[in-house]
Amino acid sequence: MRMVDLIEKKRDGGELSTEEIQFIIDGYTEGTIPDYQVSALTMAIFFQGMSEQERANLTMSMVESGDQIDLSDINGIKVDKHSTGGVGDTTTLVLGPLVAAVGVPVAKMSGRGLGHTGGTIDKLEAVDGFHVEIEKEDFIRLVNENKIAVIGQSGNLTPADKKLYALRDVTATVNSIPLIASSIMSKKIAAGADAIVLDVKTGAGAFMKSLEDSRELASAMVSIGNNVGRKTMAVISDMSQPLGYMIGNALEVKEAIDTLKGEGPEDLTELCLTLGSHMVYLAEQASTLSEAREMLIKAMNDGSALKAFKVFLESQGGNGSLVDQPEKLPQAKYKIDLPAKEAGFVSEIVADEVGTAAMLLGAGRATKESIIDLAVGLELKKKIGDEVMKGEALVTIYSNQEDIEEVKQKLYENISVTKEKVSAPTLIHEEITL
Amino acid sequence: MRMVDLIEKKRDGGELSTEEIQFIIDGYTEGTIPDYQVSALTMAIFFQGMSEQERANLTMSMVESGDQIDLSDINGIKVDKHSTGGVGDTTTLVLGPLVAAVGVPVAKMSGRGLGHTGGTIDKLEAVDGFHVEIEKEDFIRLVNENKIAVIGQSGNLTPADKKLYALRDVTATVNSIPLIASSIMSKKIAAGADAIVLDVKTGAGAFMKSLEDSRELASAMVSIGNNVGRKTMAVISDMSQPLGYMIGNALEVKEAIDTLKGEGPEDLTELCLTLGSHMVYLAEQASTLSEAREMLIKAMNDGSALKAFKVFLESQGGNGSLVDQPEKLPQAKYKIDLPAKEAGFVSEIVADEVGTAAMLLGAGRATKESIIDLAVGLELKKKIGDEVMKGEALVTIYSNQEDIEEVKQKLYENISVTKEKVSAPTLIHEEITL
Repeated sequence: MRMVDLIEKKRDGGELSTEEIQFIIDGYTEGTIPDYQVSALTMAIFFQGMSEQERANLTMSMVESGDQIDLSDINGIKVDKHSTGGVGDTTTLVLGPLVAAVGVPVAKMSGRGLGHTGGTIDKLEAVDGFHVEIEKEDFIRLVNENKIAVIGQSGNLTPADKKLYALRDVTATVNSIPLIASSIMSKKIAAGADAIVLDVKTGAGAFMKSLEDSRELASAMVSIGNNVGRKTMAVISDMSQPLGYMIGNALEVKEAIDTLKGEGPEDLTELCLTLGSHMVYLAEQASTLSEAREMLIKAMNDGSALKAFKVFLESQGGNGSLVDQPEKLPQAKYKIDLPAKEAGFVSEIVADEVGTAAMLLGAGRATKESIIDLAVGLELKKKIGDEVMKGEALVTIYSNQEDIEEVKQKLYENISVTKEKVSAPTLIHEEITL
Repeated sequence: MRMVDLIEKKRDGGELSTEEIQFIIDGYTEGTIPDYQVSALTMAIFFQGMSEQERANLTMSMVESGDQIDLSDINGIKVDKHSTGGVGDTTTLVLGPLVAAVGVPVAKMSGRGLGHTGGTIDKLEAVDGFHVEIEKEDFIRLVNENKIAVIGQSGNLTPADKKLYALRDVTATVNSIPLIASSIMSKKIAAGADAIVLDVKTGAGAFMKSLEDSRELASAMVSIGNNVGRKTMAVISDMSQPLGYMIGNALEVKEAIDTLKGEGPEDLTELCLTLGSHMVYLAEQASTLSEAREMLIKAMNDGSALKAFKVFLESQGGNGSLVDQPEKLPQAKYKIDLPAKEAGFVSEIVADEVGTAAMLLGAGRATKESIIDLAVGLELKKKIGDEVMKGEALVTIYSNQEDIEEVKQKLYENISVTKEKVSAPTLIHEEITL
């Protein structure tokens, strides 16, 4: 088999066989197929696409290119949730304890990563003492005992995907639905998921700006998952503005606690109930979605969701009492309101720019070396559609520095207020199952 | 400027500016832009094409990536001829002396290369003593004195094109009209041509199999040439069967001598008169094409074309007397006829397979290390449309080995005879000027 012939085949719209995709991914992982041939292939894929079968094969070849996490010692169906990424997305912090409280095993491997705020691990580290450096055996035991544990990333998962992603990033081939879908799915599958619930964000603050693109990506991932034997569904949810009110690490932990008690922001709560219901259903802990939803609401109301969070934090060294006294979470030195310059209705909150404002405060990493300030961030006081008086706070800025002119300016530039009444955006656009 | 942005621009159908193309070619030549970005770009070009302006800019950036031959000390307009390559193509050997005889300066830089037979230099070396290792000054002087000289390739011409071609070859991006056209034109321009006559072959034995593709390539090259200030035209000529009768090195020298005397094969003579007329016209040695053609016919008939060949050979060390005694050219040991198995009409002569048969005899190089046998080759005794009796020779095989079963078999497989009358293919399909 010659790589140049496979590039030509794809270039001319042909379908690569299982063996051909295996040959490409194995060769690329081992270094016998050079970058310059793979980048020509990915550009050909950008133009010619990939069939369902090709996408499934690519995904599994990437899964098999490295280590795979074995979660078979954990009882029950392991359902993982994945979000395509947004601003102020506290769902992971909420969903883990929430579905664990109703018996769904949550065995999460998580990372830090770059972004507007830290990753899930960074956020959890706002809880004093909490750590994810635990042994594999303890991780398995904790999930069996408590239904939830989080471990830091280890092992060499999907090296082919890492190599391919780095190459696509510098060759303008990131933006290809089959390649994005295979990349995401390979990581979830290598991490041991039996079933997968996808939260595909759509709107200005999301990677996929249009509903059409989001739908295409969601469908692509749902097909791959089911084609490789993992029950998979996707929710397309709004990211035209940040989710919930809080953007920051300790701030989001606080918001998660509120939500687990049933006292969280409406949009965050609704999204968690929607995604959570599907997780419970796919884990076969409920026989209908509405039954699952009722179980989750009950867990919020009777304190069992919050208790699951507390037990989880304590079992990994965290100070669980913070759950009852969230004021003991890291606090910023300054709390500054950003007043509305005019009365009216909030019409736009540009999610990624607002996220960048939070990063400027120190809430996220600009580079791998950046140190996160867990205490700082933003609290949106108004969301799209809310009425605001002149001088009323649009945002509360939690800062450890006094000079925040740049942050204020960015926020003013990216939060619009109009005279006309504006309706709040739709939160859940679509649910996609096979 | 970032290469990834330029790839994206082209991927999305944008037009690269002069500066952007310059940046790409300079960076690639210097090694600051890696292969994997360039291969992604060339694949994007495969799908999105290039505008006329982009093609002209790419050509000139490649010309400027290396040395350029300065022919300004040669009097007159230097017209170069380029063929896209075929089998048994003796036109270069004929055209040089032919147009030189009527005053067109022919300053040719030539190579050896791989193929069914040797390159122009290999063929000329069938003439005892002839060599192309001459100094630049002598080359210029000879062209001014005799109107014709050939020098071996030297200098670092179009390194960007060389690098790009090698990359395209392994990334399935050879087959892109803008890239092929720019590659050919950059080499001609770097070699110092003021005006260019292109012989674009079409048919089974050519790189471009269909007339449509050949026309597209021809038009692309004619546009580039004229857009960068080189008067350029193209002839689309038939390569559904080999040109002339001879395929081999000494054999083609013999055929060239016949043709220069006006006694050559009809198709080769006609093509040389057509291409030659355009060369004479572009060199401004005649004011109309028909005047140019008459000058060339006269040069054949009055012996001045042959004399120009003789003077040219002698001035570069060759034994010019061979022109009058071509039987003294290297001769093969065996001369074996291939008899027709059935009577009928020749309907097909698969040019490249017949070329491969000549290479099997030793007439061409399979690898850079191969040594050419100048004496061997094939003489077609019948061309498409010719009637043949059973047992009559289709081909005469000139060989230095006795066992030529493989060659015979290949020839039988690729020369078809039918009962029905067949007409000869059209030789000159189109002439393309701006």
